[in-house]
Amino acid sequence: MDKRLVVVGTGMLAEQVHYYFDTLGGRPVDAFALDAQFIREPQFLGRPVLDFAEVQRRFPSDTHELFVAIGFTATAARKRWFLAVRAAGYSMPSYVHPSACVAANVAVGENTLIQEQAMVSPFVRLGENLILCPQVGINHHTRVGAHCFFAPAAVVAGDADIGERCFIGANATIRDRVRIGEGCVIGAGALIMADCPADGVYRAARTGRTRESEE
Amino acid sequence: MDKRLVVVGTGMLAEQVHYYFDTLGGRPVDAFALDAQFIREPQFLGRPVLDFAEVQRRFPSDTHELFVAIGFTATAARKRWFLAVRAAGYSMPSYVHPSACVAANVAVGENTLIQEQAMVSPFVRLGENLILCPQVGINHHTRVGAHCFFAPAAVVAGDADIGERCFIGANATIRDRVRIGEGCVIGAGALIMADCPADGVYRAARTGRTRESEE
Amino acid sequence: MDKRLVVVGTGMLAEQVHYYFDTLGGRPVDAFALDAQFIREPQFLGRPVLDFAEVQRRFPSDTHELFVAIGFTATAARKRWFLAVRAAGYSMPSYVHPSACVAANVAVGENTLIQEQAMVSPFVRLGENLILCPQVGINHHTRVGAHCFFAPAAVVAGDADIGERCFIGANATIRDRVRIGEGCVIGAGALIMADCPADGVYRAARTGRTRESEE
Repeated sequence: MDKRLVVVGTGMLAEQVHYYFDTLGGRPVDAFALDAQFIREPQFLGRPVLDFAEVQRRFPSDTHELFVAIGFTATAARKRWFLAVRAAGYSMPSYVHPSACVAANVAVGENTLIQEQAMVSPFVRLGENLILCPQVGINHHTRVGAHCFFAPAAVVAGDADIGERCFIGANATIRDRVRIGEGCVIGAGALIMADCPADGVYRAARTGRTRESEE
Repeated sequence: MDKRLVVVGTGMLAEQVHYYFDTLGGRPVDAFALDAQFIREPQFLGRPVLDFAEVQRRFPSDTHELFVAIGFTATAARKRWFLAVRAAGYSMPSYVHPSACVAANVAVGENTLIQEQAMVSPFVRLGENLILCPQVGINHHTRVGAHCFFAPAAVVAGDADIGERCFIGANATIRDRVRIGEGCVIGAGALIMADCPADGVYRAARTGRTRESEE
Repeated sequence: MDKRLVVVGTGMLAEQVHYYFDTLGGRPVDAFALDAQFIREPQFLGRPVLDFAEVQRRFPSDTHELFVAIGFTATAARKRWFLAVRAAGYSMPSYVHPSACVAANVAVGENTLIQEQAMVSPFVRLGENLILCPQVGINHHTRVGAHCFFAPAAVVAGDADIGERCFIGANATIRDRVRIGEGCVIGAGALIMADCPADGVYRAARTGRTRESEE
């Protein structure tokens, strides 16, 4: 039988993860976890909010798994929590939404969330601790490092390399065979046609207002 | 048992709506409706084309529902018809394509069309009288006002606000937490990264021809 | 019973086609075919690599079908092989991934690959020998000529015309009612808002590096 859960985070991503596992999936979430200095309220969604030491005391790894639901604004914290939870002996589940399409020859690592209609093609290799938002597409033979966040409808064409800890923004496009170095931030709507050295920020030109609507 | 239908409009959207309800869904469409001054042909797809007064005489609300299938070129007319049909006592169905993915905690209002592979995440709130074309993505916690039209593959990231009567063009990108005021027209391929006051028009730069193909 | 297969090509597309038909679909691929001058290795995925004359000797059309799996870098070769295979009396299968959504009133021609979550709306007309990569959207009433390649997540809005032998890049956007002439190359992320005469190349502006990431 699946273990019960503790979810790390109290933001909108944690709310969604609670919805997937608990409301829809029937796997109870017994608590939420935060770094002690960020705890503002004693409860979230009716469950206690605890620091990690308290989680370990009350919900040990023989009965509970943890899911780190920290979003794109804090990738470093998401990686740090992932490593700390693993070091403490917990396993971490993954969640693949039923409407997602992940090829049968792709392995999904721990603490990975693959949301509605996300798509992972055959021959892709996925690292651990990934967030694939709805309608993301990771195309054939692409390799994705750990701890990345793909915002809604981001598209990675075939045979690309995405380093660890990258953020790929909403509806961004990474062309085939491009290499994105570790820690890059690719903005929403960006078009990446060539290799990106590590730790770069790429922001697409936003669309300006041209006139008033006449209707 | 579902009531029979009258569809408002005789354009390509009306043809699609007829296909979904009648051809695929087994709900007969008995007539099409138009404002009297726009009636050019007595029939469309083999059914009579009638003005609203005639529809009310021949197909009353105890046996029929109406679906307003007026597309993005006439948002004001779509809203006006929606209100007139409701005022006349008709209910209006919605249609969610089987390949679409609408979260269980999202309510779909009247006269809403959610086409192939459109996606509505958990915690979204949808107004009435919406058209979501194929592959549209409305992400978590976003609020959408009534009478909006989302063209194919338009993406709204999480926690955004879309006002009433907006048009969001094909493959446009609205970033998370942005507010789009009422009546905005966001062009195809646009990238919206900041709030848009009401009634604005935003057109993305189109891609020009660079050279001749060599193959 | 379905005939056995020979796949033309030994690249990543051929590998995917082998995966779909043979690994997943239980239709054995007995060989791969190449023009004689391109044969470098005697085997690919454990099957012999043969020129077309040898294929015809060993795997005749009464027992075998051919699938031409030549990708976007060689559209002319893909068309040439398609015509040669047909002239030699072979039939060519098509493959529609189970997660794709093709309207019931759309006919799929020979040697067409429709990959994961690709979407073809009602009233679309498709030519033969097409590749629709994952998450491509071909919207209502659009007409697509033969031998085209649609890269991942390319979007064609409604009632457009796409000529023969076009390449439409990853996440490109073709607005509604636009006509794309034969042999056009529409780059990744391009936004096409007006008709494109034949044999044009359209490349979108790529996103540049703006600064280093601070996290």
